[in-house]
Amino acid sequence: DCNQGDDNDAMLSNFDGFEILKVISENTRSKTVTVHGKMKGENAVVLLEKKPFDAKHMNRYLTEETSLKNTLKNDIYGTYEAFLPSTENAVKAVVIHPATDKHIQKYTDQERFVIEETENLYKTVTLPLLESKQLSVQWVYNILEKKQEADRIVYEDTDPEIGFILLPDMKWDRKDPAALYLVAIAHKHGIKSLRDLNASKLPLLKNILNQGKNAIMKKYNVPSWKLHAYIHYQPSYYHFHVHFTNIKLEAPGFDADRAHLLTDVIENIEMMDTYYEKKTLTFVARETEDLFLKFKENGCFDETSQDEIKKD
Amino acid sequence: DCNQGDDNDAMLSNFDGFEILKVISENTRSKTVTVHGKMKGENAVVLLEKKPFDAKHMNRYLTEETSLKNTLKNDIYGTYEAFLPSTENAVKAVVIHPATDKHIQKYTDQERFVIEETENLYKTVTLPLLESKQLSVQWVYNILEKKQEADRIVYEDTDPEIGFILLPDMKWDRKDPAALYLVAIAHKHGIKSLRDLNASKLPLLKNILNQGKNAIMKKYNVPSWKLHAYIHYQPSYYHFHVHFTNIKLEAPGFDADRAHLLTDVIENIEMMDTYYEKKTLTFVARETEDLFLKFKENGCFDETSQDEIKKD
Repeated sequence: DCNQGDDNDAMLSNFDGFEILKVISENTRSKTVTVHGKMKGENAVVLLEKKPFDAKHMNRYLTEETSLKNTLKNDIYGTYEAFLPSTENAVKAVVIHPATDKHIQKYTDQERFVIEETENLYKTVTLPLLESKQLSVQWVYNILEKKQEADRIVYEDTDPEIGFILLPDMKWDRKDPAALYLVAIAHKHGIKSLRDLNASKLPLLKNILNQGKNAIMKKYNVPSWKLHAYIHYQPSYYHFHVHFTNIKLEAPGFDADRAHLLTDVIENIEMMDTYYEKKTLTFVARETEDLFLKFKENGCFDETSQDEIKKD
Repeated sequence: DCNQGDDNDAMLSNFDGFEILKVISENTRSKTVTVHGKMKGENAVVLLEKKPFDAKHMNRYLTEETSLKNTLKNDIYGTYEAFLPSTENAVKAVVIHPATDKHIQKYTDQERFVIEETENLYKTVTLPLLESKQLSVQWVYNILEKKQEADRIVYEDTDPEIGFILLPDMKWDRKDPAALYLVAIAHKHGIKSLRDLNASKLPLLKNILNQGKNAIMKKYNVPSWKLHAYIHYQPSYYHFHVHFTNIKLEAPGFDADRAHLLTDVIENIEMMDTYYEKKTLTFVARETEDLFLKFKENGCFDETSQDEIKKD
C-alpha cells in the first residue's frame, strides 16, 4: 500500500498505460475535454485544455519551422493546417489520480434545464428550499466585518443601509484593467436576491452603481461606458452583491438567462415597485442542483407541461 | 507582374520570410490570434486558431507518445504541459494575401462602448439614423416570398399578421440538435426592432413563441426547457425576427447586453403597453459603427457625461 502511495505521488512523464473509459465533458468553444480513465488500477480524471496563443511568441509561430498543409485555396484566401514547433504548442493537462466518484461527478458535463420561475413558483418552491437549507453567508459577514480579505478592499462606503465594500473577484489577477472584475457587497444583511429588491432598496442600488463606477474610474481609469454592472439570478450566494466587469472580458456569467443589468433593475423598480416580486424570472439549473430537483418534483419538466404551451 | 500573381496564388508550405508587423486581434477564450504582416513585399493577414479536441482521437492523445512536463503537484492533483504528437495538434491557419487595408481593418479588434439608449436618444439619434440609411431588407422579403431559401424552411405559418417562417441560421449545420440555431422571421413588414413592440404585437409574439417551440419539438425533439427564444437589440437587420437556440450552444449573441428573452418581452408588454417605447435599452457598439459615431457626436462619451453620474 505504501509503495502504491509512492507511485501515485510520482510525476508522470507521459500517458503510458492510461486506459480511457469515457469522455465526460467537452467544450469546443473553450477547447477543453475531460476524460475518465484508469491508471494503475485506480480511477483518474484528465482535463486537457488548449492554451491561448502568446502574442510575444508570434515570431516563433510564423517561421519556416511551422509547416503548413493546405486545405482550401480560393483567390487571396488560403486555409491551412499549421504544425507549430512542438515546444510552442503545449496543451495544459491536469491529472487527478486517484480520483474519487465525487471528482468524476464534478467534472462530468451536467444536463441543464431552463426554469421559468413565476411569482408563485418562487414562493412555493424556491423560497421554502432556501429557508430550509439555511445557507451560511458567514464568509461574507467576515469580509464586511474585515475579519477576512481586508487588505483586498478597493473602496468602502460604511453606511449600514446604502453602504458596500468593493473588492476584486477571485477570477481577476488585479493587474490587467481589460480583465477587470470587481464585486460590490452590500453592508445590509437580509437581501437574499433580486426577488427582494423594491423601491425601498433604490438608494442602495443607486449608491452602488454611482460610487462603484466612480471608484473604478479613479482607481483603474476605466470609464462607465467600458463597464457592465449586473446582478446574477440565481446568485451563487444569497447576500446582495453586484458584479462590475470590463466589457472586454467575456465574463462567463453574463448570459441573458443569468445577468440582470443594474441600470435595468433600477429602472424596472422605478416603473413598478413590485416588479421583481411579480416578474417571472428565467434561469438555467443543472440536473444535480437541489433547486432543479424541487422544480422537477413540482412537475415543471413533465410532458404535460410541454403540452400546456400548445394549449396557450 | 504576372509572375508576382503566380507567386501569390501559390500554396504555402511554411511561414518562411513572413515579416510580423502587428498582432491586430487576440482572444484568450476562443484561443485565436490575428497578425498583420508582410509576405513578398505585400500585406498579409494571418489568423491562427487552436482547434477543439476530437473526442474520437482521445486514444491518440493519451499515450506514451504524449510527453508531460510537470508544472505543479499537490496531493492527488498534478498539472502538466503536455506535448501531443504533432499530427494530433494542428492549428487552423487562414492566410489572406495580398490583403487590402479593408481586410486589415476588418480583422483588427475594435474598441467597444456601452450605450444606454433612453427613449429620447432613440427618437433623436437612433431612429433618424435608421431612417436616413434606408437599410434594405429585400433579402428578408425574398425569403418570406420564397424566392430564396424555400428549401430550408422548417415551419411556416402563412398568416400575414401573426405568421412567420422558421429556418436554420447560417451558423448551424442542421445536424447536431445540441447546436440547434433557428430563426423565426415575421411575415409582417415594418416592425424594425424591440422598440416597435407593444400590446398590438402580442398575438404575433405569442404565436412565434408557442408555434416555434412546438415545431422544434416535433422536428428535432428538443423540448422547451432546452431552448432559449430571444430578440437582439440592436438587431443585425431591422425586420422583426426571433432567435431559437439550444441552451447547450454557447451562442455568441446571448449576452445580457444584447439578448432579450421572448418570454420577458411578452410579460413586460403585458405589464405595460409602452414598456419598450419608454425603457432605456443598453447595448454595446463598436467604434466604427455609424450608431456609435452618432452617439459620440451627441456627447455620450464625454468626460462631462461621466461627471453626470457623480452628480446623480
